[in-house]
Amino acid sequence: MGTEARKLQGEVDRLQQELQTLKAQYHSEDEELITISDYILKRLEQLNVTSIFGVPGDFNMPFLDFIEDHPTIQWIGNCNELNAAYAADGYSRVKEHSIGVVVTTFGVGELSATNAIAGAFSEMVPVLHIVGVPSTTQLKNKPMLHHTLGDGRFNVYTKVAEQITAAQAMIMNKAQAAAEIDRILMEAIIQARPVYLTLPMDLTTEKISARRLKVELPRTPPPNNPDVESYVIDEIMELVEDAKRDVIVLVDACAVRHDLREEVNDLLVKTQFPVYATPMGKTSVSEEHERYGGIYIGSITHPSIKERVENANLILSIGALKSDFNTGMFTYHIPARHTIELHSDHTLVRHAKFPGIGMKWLLPKLTERLSKFQEGASRIPVPHYKLDVPKESDDKISHAYFWPRVGKFFRKQDVIVAETGTSNFGVLDVPMPDQCIFVSQILYGSIGWATASTLGAAIAARDRHLGRTILFTGDGSMQLTVQEISTMTHNKLTPIIFVLNNKGYNIERHLHGLDRKYNDIADWKWASLLTTLGDIEGKLTQSYTVRSKSELDKLLDDEEFASARKIQLVEVIMDKYDTPRALQASAALTAQAAAGQL
Amino acid sequence: MGTEARKLQGEVDRLQQELQTLKAQYHSEDEELITISDYILKRLEQLNVTSIFGVPGDFNMPFLDFIEDHPTIQWIGNCNELNAAYAADGYSRVKEHSIGVVVTTFGVGELSATNAIAGAFSEMVPVLHIVGVPSTTQLKNKPMLHHTLGDGRFNVYTKVAEQITAAQAMIMNKAQAAAEIDRILMEAIIQARPVYLTLPMDLTTEKISARRLKVELPRTPPPNNPDVESYVIDEIMELVEDAKRDVIVLVDACAVRHDLREEVNDLLVKTQFPVYATPMGKTSVSEEHERYGGIYIGSITHPSIKERVENANLILSIGALKSDFNTGMFTYHIPARHTIELHSDHTLVRHAKFPGIGMKWLLPKLTERLSKFQEGASRIPVPHYKLDVPKESDDKISHAYFWPRVGKFFRKQDVIVAETGTSNFGVLDVPMPDQCIFVSQILYGSIGWATASTLGAAIAARDRHLGRTILFTGDGSMQLTVQEISTMTHNKLTPIIFVLNNKGYNIERHLHGLDRKYNDIADWKWASLLTTLGDIEGKLTQSYTVRSKSELDKLLDDEEFASARKIQLVEVIMDKYDTPRALQASAALTAQAAAGQL
Repeated sequence: MGTEARKLQGEVDRLQQELQTLKAQYHSEDEELITISDYILKRLEQLNVTSIFGVPGDFNMPFLDFIEDHPTIQWIGNCNELNAAYAADGYSRVKEHSIGVVVTTFGVGELSATNAIAGAFSEMVPVLHIVGVPSTTQLKNKPMLHHTLGDGRFNVYTKVAEQITAAQAMIMNKAQAAAEIDRILMEAIIQARPVYLTLPMDLTTEKISARRLKVELPRTPPPNNPDVESYVIDEIMELVEDAKRDVIVLVDACAVRHDLREEVNDLLVKTQFPVYATPMGKTSVSEEHERYGGIYIGSITHPSIKERVENANLILSIGALKSDFNTGMFTYHIPARHTIELHSDHTLVRHAKFPGIGMKWLLPKLTERLSKFQEGASRIPVPHYKLDVPKESDDKISHAYFWPRVGKFFRKQDVIVAETGTSNFGVLDVPMPDQCIFVSQILYGSIGWATASTLGAAIAARDRHLGRTILFTGDGSMQLTVQEISTMTHNKLTPIIFVLNNKGYNIERHLHGLDRKYNDIADWKWASLLTTLGDIEGKLTQSYTVRSKSELDKLLDDEEFASARKIQLVEVIMDKYDTPRALQASAALTAQAAAGQL
Repeated sequence: MGTEARKLQGEVDRLQQELQTLKAQYHSEDEELITISDYILKRLEQLNVTSIFGVPGDFNMPFLDFIEDHPTIQWIGNCNELNAAYAADGYSRVKEHSIGVVVTTFGVGELSATNAIAGAFSEMVPVLHIVGVPSTTQLKNKPMLHHTLGDGRFNVYTKVAEQITAAQAMIMNKAQAAAEIDRILMEAIIQARPVYLTLPMDLTTEKISARRLKVELPRTPPPNNPDVESYVIDEIMELVEDAKRDVIVLVDACAVRHDLREEVNDLLVKTQFPVYATPMGKTSVSEEHERYGGIYIGSITHPSIKERVENANLILSIGALKSDFNTGMFTYHIPARHTIELHSDHTLVRHAKFPGIGMKWLLPKLTERLSKFQEGASRIPVPHYKLDVPKESDDKISHAYFWPRVGKFFRKQDVIVAETGTSNFGVLDVPMPDQCIFVSQILYGSIGWATASTLGAAIAARDRHLGRTILFTGDGSMQLTVQEISTMTHNKLTPIIFVLNNKGYNIERHLHGLDRKYNDIADWKWASLLTTLGDIEGKLTQSYTVRSKSELDKLLDDEEFASARKIQLVEVIMDKYDTPRALQASAALTAQAAAGQL
């Protein structure tokens, strides 16, 4: 379908929705009815949701009955709600064109998920948070129920949710239920943010019209104003002309979050512009693409890449998200007059802002116009982005060795999850094969996220028939959410989990308190974790400890290990103080910022 | 010190505080200065705080330096923030006359603690939540920092905290720092609720006057209006006369939370009124007290106790907290015209409410007046509260057998923590020896609370030279917060942890979905947990699995086990469907309530 046709289809879908809302008020006798629970599940099915995460509680169990009985959607029972919401986040990130869903219970459950939902908001990940709440009668009468604050304030939890979600629906009767459910789902998709739905126990089985379900929810943003859009394209074309074809593309997180992989790829094929990615944009463009030049992260960038990016006459930035760690602590040396920024809901051409001109519709048209520069652009050389495994004299596993070495282990279509901190900075420099998906939480940076997120990522990878799911985390981070590896084993998922054991919070040491005791942690028997947490017979999992380069090499070269037929955990013994290059540089910049020098 | 003197001392302290606040505005050149960090720690020291819980993050580490360097306060590094806040809650509950303290980092850390802080609010537990936040410059300029929502809203986390804490202080300069710190600490103590403090990185080392520290914070509520108080006492006396000495005392949670153990005991000694406790009031009065008759929980009460409570001519209720599970699903059969309720900030005499008349000052005066009824009251017999171990024909460990049996294992001064759900209902009926402290979360009821709370409880018990700390939890609940047992081992604590392994969420099964898969959980190797999570050499811990009554008896009779010199975990294999009497009854009432029949 062409751009114009897709835009029109979006409009048609939207108008039909509006029509259905009105029609719903005039039920006919013989129309099809559906429970509110099944209405929700049907919508989720239409959005390709296969798995719902969460923890049972007495206020959500009536809804869980419907999930358990659903033919295509499976219930993934988590160990706790924070982990469940992280898993929904990971699922959403890897599934793409879909959403993550987490179900918790009133108060005690939903509040435990707060941090994960805030993380999804920050990082623009669509997640539906469904909370099972007391009956509508109880919500009105406000008795001193368990899970309340005991002071009659029944709206407290919703007020918390309002702070960290893009839209909320508190269903209190069946009349508006369908329209409300549809509204927040559309917000989740279009804004790429979490949304919040409360479902009272007694409404789970109430029946409503199924008519709206005949039209699927639109999944594209509203169209741009054609006059402004055409003006913006002309402006951009003029700048590109002026740039004498020395244009580079810089792809960032929002290109993936707002579903522009295809459009960006099309731009690159048709223009042959050199392309770079930010840390949060890593793998949004294939790192094996012949025009791909590597990762740009301000002052921390490898010098050869830094020079190419910062000296370009014009930078076309797609989906920028300029957070501290994503920009090398705000050290971009790119003047605004050399920059065009495409965003989901606005466009910046040098200093001029065009609100409402979103990249989803703008980019394809721009690509058509820019294709005429292909021949000139293709003549600009882009050095192949690679990272060699260094020769080191000792056998200790250093960061300088580890990351390039695991880079050789990666395969096409692997899903690679890196925890905030050491792992994230370490893996940045490692080129990943074509169609790999890199998952990280660089803006929000909540440690513990990666382990639980890997559960959701692995399920989404299975849904999409992608390759292996590989997690890199540290001993400190892993401790926050460790129990969720049990859910992975229980659900026969087979991620490979690398735990960097360096006796504490490595990133924190490098930011402050290098030798402080508060950065030390209790050491665990990492290689016994998988069996203790669920693999009672010892047949479903495999664990390893590697202490030297030779042990690491041997394991990574082992075809049985690489085939990832079981869940596997690798404890990697590293020096307490060693740290990746990018983290070292970033910590130095952070210290300067804290001291007011930046 | 007599009541009147203590009241006056409270007034003196308060006036001196006010004076110091004013004086602080006129610094003299030679006055003693102290960093804001040390000011906070000094106040905590004055409140007998010995341990602070939390997780390091880059925004709180400058403050952690001060904790680590403090001579008497120790840093307890937790595995995650939810657990840290639960531990602070447990510490506060067992320490008494003090507060719990948890330190987290901006956003990602503090939001993870949300549920635990809300629980402390609900259950009236004073906890200080200190959040390390960016520098004051960053807070004003709002760059897109990590741990933010990326949209410039830097006040979001504070808005969340406002919903679930009794007072907040966002320190932004040193001028008001001391007064603000003092204000929220006093609120925490007087309201018995959590409070919230944000500490910007750059202010941790700023120096302020130490003068206010010379006066300790008052720890008693404001005095009652003497005229109203005296009127209320007369009213109560009249009712007691009318009741022909058939008066019983019912003690509930707030008697402990608002620090009335001593006053209540004095009342019982001087009046000899029979006394009963609610589930949340359990052990607020010694269960070996000769006038103690057992637990009252509405319809769920043992019939002989129920009759005595409900047929009394007058009930003097102290610190009532009438939540669903604490009242047998609101099935009190006690008419208001037979009831006097003493609360922390008001008094109810039958239907009349007297705002501002708090029990802390009222009760001692009332006791003096009521002591004249001693002789008559002491003639009313109170059957000894006991629970025999039943004879059962098989060797399976049933709930009917387990709870009375562990009752025989309890010793004077044990701290007994029971998880929400099966354990809580099971242990209710078990009499506990003198000076035991029973810790539970019956109103808020967040599963996972008990394990992490036990960490704090065990530290407080050590501080107070109490006996053993004993936890009862289920396999489902334990999975939520399991990693915190590692912190116990790391800190050489020696709780005894009973994990009831019944293959899932037992309480949930009995509330809804008895055979639903969502109530099943992954089975773990429980007896390997302690070694895997920190006891690498296997010397610091001991684990057991008991599958029969005889195995259980043997273990409980083992003096080495009972001496609790190491941390010990006991996996107790129980039937999937078996459940305690009180839970069964409560589940039936809950089902009726959900169906609108109550």
